[in-house]
Amino acid sequence: MKILKLTMLLLAMGTTQAFAQGAPIFPKGEKAPNVNHVGNVWLYEVHAPDSTFNYGISVATFDPGARLNWHQHPGGQILMIMEGVGYYQEKGKPRQTIRKGDVVKCSPGVVHWHGASPESGVTYLSTTPAQNGKTVWLEKLTEQEYFGGK
Amino acid sequence: MKILKLTMLLLAMGTTQAFAQGAPIFPKGEKAPNVNHVGNVWLYEVHAPDSTFNYGISVATFDPGARLNWHQHPGGQILMIMEGVGYYQEKGKPRQTIRKGDVVKCSPGVVHWHGASPESGVTYLSTTPAQNGKTVWLEKLTEQEYFGGK
Repeated sequence: MKILKLTMLLLAMGTTQAFAQGAPIFPKGEKAPNVNHVGNVWLYEVHAPDSTFNYGISVATFDPGARLNWHQHPGGQILMIMEGVGYYQEKGKPRQTIRKGDVVKCSPGVVHWHGASPESGVTYLSTTPAQNGKTVWLEKLTEQEYFGGK
Repeated sequence: MKILKLTMLLLAMGTTQAFAQGAPIFPKGEKAPNVNHVGNVWLYEVHAPDSTFNYGISVATFDPGARLNWHQHPGGQILMIMEGVGYYQEKGKPRQTIRKGDVVKCSPGVVHWHGASPESGVTYLSTTPAQNGKTVWLEKLTEQEYFGGK
């Protein structure tokens, strides 16, 4: 009976420890309205561009299957994948799988989309230079494109 | 005996799970030479400033007790605390404790220092605009200053 209690205690400790260590760094933020994406996406604004730091810093969290439409950033964007597995694709190039620790540098004006994989959500931190203007949203991503078809 | 084996299995599972979930996002990088700091500090360069993204992005990891000397950034700096507990102080102001999830915006030219607390290391991601020049290193941080004295 003592050993069973110990088992349960260790199980509880293990779970608590895993949860504490795996806790996200930043809040999930606000759920984004479904204007330019499919699925559930949350945005947390770490920094809004100003005259000292003229780039936005945000954390985006995608549920499995959630993905943005095609778009481009006039000043480019750097994505740092913090958790999970997602996809990134530039127009005319193959879809890439992106994972925790990956860094993607998207050049100004390059048409692309990104999102979560169907099985796993994805969270990334982005920095987006603001001096050349805001994100330009383009056509809807098709199911076929999302699943890696031509 | 079966219960004991189960205990050990659960303990092993708990440990593995905690380790996997708590794994750092980026590599620890290179150990920095002790020129402008005390203790052990590692640097991982995510992005070196270029003409498209004219700010550096780095991850710095400090062992407990490690701290930088006084310095200033001609273009300012944004610190995002990713793990642990540290200190941040601007010259003439009280020392602040900084924790996972905190964001510190340090204005251009403001003399300051940052580092880990004595009990816990700290890891942060920083973005540092490069257009006005590199970090300017100043006087050594005293023991008294590190421990919050005047």
